[in-house]
Amino acid sequence: MIIIGERINGMFRDIAKAIREKDPAPVQEWARKQEEMGAGYLDINVGPAVSDRVDAMRWLVEVTQEASKLPLCLDSTDYDAIEAGLEVCKRPAMINSVPAIQEKMDRVFTLAGKYDAEVIGLAMSEEGIPKDSDSRIALAMELVANCDAYGVPVQNLYIDPLVLPCNVGQDHGPEVFETLRQVKLMADPPPKTTVGLSNISQGTKNRELINRTFAVMAMACGLDSAIADACDEELIAAVATARIILNMDIYCDGYVDVFKNQNK
Amino acid sequence: MIIIGERINGMFRDIAKAIREKDPAPVQEWARKQEEMGAGYLDINVGPAVSDRVDAMRWLVEVTQEASKLPLCLDSTDYDAIEAGLEVCKRPAMINSVPAIQEKMDRVFTLAGKYDAEVIGLAMSEEGIPKDSDSRIALAMELVANCDAYGVPVQNLYIDPLVLPCNVGQDHGPEVFETLRQVKLMADPPPKTTVGLSNISQGTKNRELINRTFAVMAMACGLDSAIADACDEELIAAVATARIILNMDIYCDGYVDVFKNQNK
Repeated sequence: MIIIGERINGMFRDIAKAIREKDPAPVQEWARKQEEMGAGYLDINVGPAVSDRVDAMRWLVEVTQEASKLPLCLDSTDYDAIEAGLEVCKRPAMINSVPAIQEKMDRVFTLAGKYDAEVIGLAMSEEGIPKDSDSRIALAMELVANCDAYGVPVQNLYIDPLVLPCNVGQDHGPEVFETLRQVKLMADPPPKTTVGLSNISQGTKNRELINRTFAVMAMACGLDSAIADACDEELIAAVATARIILNMDIYCDGYVDVFKNQNK
Repeated sequence: MIIIGERINGMFRDIAKAIREKDPAPVQEWARKQEEMGAGYLDINVGPAVSDRVDAMRWLVEVTQEASKLPLCLDSTDYDAIEAGLEVCKRPAMINSVPAIQEKMDRVFTLAGKYDAEVIGLAMSEEGIPKDSDSRIALAMELVANCDAYGVPVQNLYIDPLVLPCNVGQDHGPEVFETLRQVKLMADPPPKTTVGLSNISQGTKNRELINRTFAVMAMACGLDSAIADACDEELIAAVATARIILNMDIYCDGYVDVFKNQNK
């Protein structure tokens, strides 16, 4: 499973301040730290408080790339900001994200084709997030069909079944797992899968315990990646262990350390 | 998920000594401790070094029942010892275990019918443990058919897909998960499922991390119970969290403590 490091996000105060003051240091420090911990991608989100999202995204992408060679996951609902980021990306990036809404899919899959980008597709429509797995799977199918129609390889599409906090949307948990299982049977090769991991524990106690438990359970159902805290050592250890159990990495006594250092 | 507490087992020195000296204190202390931690059953195994297994099993069952009201899981390959234990059990017990070998199934399902006992059925035959899930599932089907033929309710049968240490039988992990998934689709109501949890980490480093990671991944695939260390607090917390995520218990901020105290 690949961790998409969540920390370069204007939702966090230090990053919001860095963007405001055009100070690359905090951004680059988090870029390096997440890469050291084994992140496979870095999520880049300018946050909610920025006045010029296009400019902020371009700047964030540029300063992050000075510190890390990891591919970036450009995270915004503003597709002009996404495109501004894609224009300056040195390596193929990931677009985070597009719902199963036609005009948005048209824009995003066109961008993906033009910039050779991967895409996170959300199992939601104009009506919001459905509860049952069948409806989520139907939306995933729409995303796959549109991805294919725009000539974007289906294995470059990451379906996000959308995780709700377990203290308010507890009945969604088993539906998310069933959606993951079904997505992996959807095409050959199948789309990949992802989740915004910390959503499962929003507003709960025991957040890290819930995050890492959910992560490895979802891996057993076909989860390929997660936007998550790459610096949560217990999460990283749990994921490394799940990879061993799923026979994705060869067992060795030091597998946890090997995993942490894989990108060093 | 139900924890079958593994600690009353002659494989452990203190229990072997207690059996030898007919000293009920260590046995009863472990019975109480495991019940306090939330175990749902207590496994009772006289161990390998005992001269008279029938006598030892009868004594272990009797002294355990003086300390705990939990149902017992009588664990032996010696079915005379199992029957001696069943004769003195005050509550319906579980027989641990029977492989898919005809003469053994004949004996065990006859006992189960006579004593209203549940049965753990192992996905193995005379030829040993198969690797692929299809062969494990075929053996599970044989166990279900025999269970049914002897009039034992299928939901009283616990299929154990058989877990191998991840450092030597790493390729078995995904097969075990697939077997669990298929077993839950096998009949309506389906058989239950169980594993000997600590097998996954036999001879490895990071044993507790591997045990608890495997446990919650297996729960996402349909694991109902496990013979495990009921006093491993991090395992208990992980299982409680997985139950919340699977919507089996209602979320509350103190769910970990609630789970630990459920049998108090």
